[in-house]
Amino acid sequence: MNFAPQVLQGNRLALARLLTQIENNTPAGRAALDELYGQTGRAHRIGVTGAPGTGKSSLVNQLALHYRRPPQGDPLRVAVVAVDPSSPFTGGAILGDRVRMRDLAGDPGVFIRSMASRGSLGGLAAATSGVVQALDAGGFDLILIETVGAGQAEVDIARLAHTTLVIEAPGLGDDIQAIKAGILEIADVLVINKADRPGVENTERSLRSMLQLGHPTAHVFQNHISKPGHEAALSTPPAADDGLQMWIPPIVRTVATEGLGIADLAAAIAQHRQHLQSSGELAQRELARLRSELELLLRETLVARWRERTPDEQFGGALERVARREISPWQAADELAQNC
Amino acid sequence: MNFAPQVLQGNRLALARLLTQIENNTPAGRAALDELYGQTGRAHRIGVTGAPGTGKSSLVNQLALHYRRPPQGDPLRVAVVAVDPSSPFTGGAILGDRVRMRDLAGDPGVFIRSMASRGSLGGLAAATSGVVQALDAGGFDLILIETVGAGQAEVDIARLAHTTLVIEAPGLGDDIQAIKAGILEIADVLVINKADRPGVENTERSLRSMLQLGHPTAHVFQNHISKPGHEAALSTPPAADDGLQMWIPPIVRTVATEGLGIADLAAAIAQHRQHLQSSGELAQRELARLRSELELLLRETLVARWRERTPDEQFGGALERVARREISPWQAADELAQNC
Repeated sequence: MNFAPQVLQGNRLALARLLTQIENNTPAGRAALDELYGQTGRAHRIGVTGAPGTGKSSLVNQLALHYRRPPQGDPLRVAVVAVDPSSPFTGGAILGDRVRMRDLAGDPGVFIRSMASRGSLGGLAAATSGVVQALDAGGFDLILIETVGAGQAEVDIARLAHTTLVIEAPGLGDDIQAIKAGILEIADVLVINKADRPGVENTERSLRSMLQLGHPTAHVFQNHISKPGHEAALSTPPAADDGLQMWIPPIVRTVATEGLGIADLAAAIAQHRQHLQSSGELAQRELARLRSELELLLRETLVARWRERTPDEQFGGALERVARREISPWQAADELAQNC
Repeated sequence: MNFAPQVLQGNRLALARLLTQIENNTPAGRAALDELYGQTGRAHRIGVTGAPGTGKSSLVNQLALHYRRPPQGDPLRVAVVAVDPSSPFTGGAILGDRVRMRDLAGDPGVFIRSMASRGSLGGLAAATSGVVQALDAGGFDLILIETVGAGQAEVDIARLAHTTLVIEAPGLGDDIQAIKAGILEIADVLVINKADRPGVENTERSLRSMLQLGHPTAHVFQNHISKPGHEAALSTPPAADDGLQMWIPPIVRTVATEGLGIADLAAAIAQHRQHLQSSGELAQRELARLRSELELLLRETLVARWRERTPDEQFGGALERVARREISPWQAADELAQNC
């Protein structure tokens, strides 16, 4: 069944069913997405990533609540897509839903969807892309895309976003440093959650010095990035220099479980969006996002086409020769790829 | 230059150069790997994975030291491949090398290689596979493949191993739970590192209950898995029931920074290897590993072939139509894939 018309009318049940079609990669889901695609491009997509233990889920909850009950203006329609690439076998993401439902259940302006990998990572990223398109066409103003962990998978999924939040927390161990180096380069806003914990100064200091490594000219704007933290000032003001058309990721402190710093975080996100629009970067980023998306879908399509054309026995035969060490896996891959 | 003959003679410099060729995916590297492939299959490959903050690197260090100075028997030749998929842009893995060199530098029986992603995750996994093959052909008895994080990337890389260690540590936050569910299914040995920290009992208890979820019959063997922990007994004996041809991942406690529990861990690894051999699972697992490897290389080959055949303008043209929302990304991917 094609749920596209009902989705455009705001039917939640139809939307839920379409998302299931998309997750299962059915022809009906594909057809609906093709139909809906012209209606996409309005939502602001916010990626949320960070290592385990940083409290991402609580933060996303609090952000969603904030947008539903804004201090001024109308409530916004918010969708949350929680992606768990770490759980290829069992649905680790499911758990998160239940916890969330307590605060947000019953609110028709909120839509929450958990996705766990069902096989390949590429398949998950492609499905996530489709789910986000459908939610965009469904009229949600903000789409929060949350990923567990901070590996390449998360980086790929973060590329679906306009604004990417990278969440840190004090005292998570030294390995975090290595992750930061890579993940920082995709951050538009840095969040130190659990900012009431000891070590928050150290975390902020190390983030700031990493920011300077990544943005060699950032020292010029040091005052903008963040003031040396006081325990009194739980969050530091987000900074952008639109005059110079350059965005330095602000550092925002939050305590999601207490709802502290959430308004500052929302303000930083709004400033980043503003920056994207005024600098013309939005169109550029949108194109980069579509490029990644197209590359991803192309990869999956190439593999699917190859699979259709190749009898299982052929793969099995090549595998056996590799196992007997007659040919190397690279030689076998070359041979098999001739089919395509 | 073809370094294969020198690698077979145990020339370290040639090996290092070959690994660079493999990382850069050069034709010379590919040719050398094809040549060396017949000499592979002897090393025991040990995957080491776990969330940031669990102290994986120290543990891998200590294991390598243990194998170099075994309480009995000859020292084994050990290679360490540290893979960092979390750092697609900067080489986060490099740092780890320096720290390691202090303990292991100058020992000709140890070879350490760090690899960071240089673009696609698939490319990194393919390169890692090649590096491990070369080290195997180079005569290393044990190859420790360490990955940062616990996402799908790490699961893919762990599939290259015969024995997979999953590292936990007490007090890393609740998100860990979600990760465990998926990662546990690839664990052959569970390690609770930093076992001198408070909360170790809770960590072991939750690991044990997850094990029971994953192995519904495991309660039968509960005594084998682990005894309720005493602070006095730092590690619990590894368990296997070879008579029933079933392996229940043992839980081993370590404090890598103090060198505690390392011998127990090595014993658990040896038992798992023994189990693989006596149960006939080794051949089966080897075939599963080669299958994953072949699938991975095939994916990369398909994409590379498509790229050779497709002018950049064609991709760019399709992308522009997607950006103007004339066609959906899925339609564009279908069109582009016709080329292959």
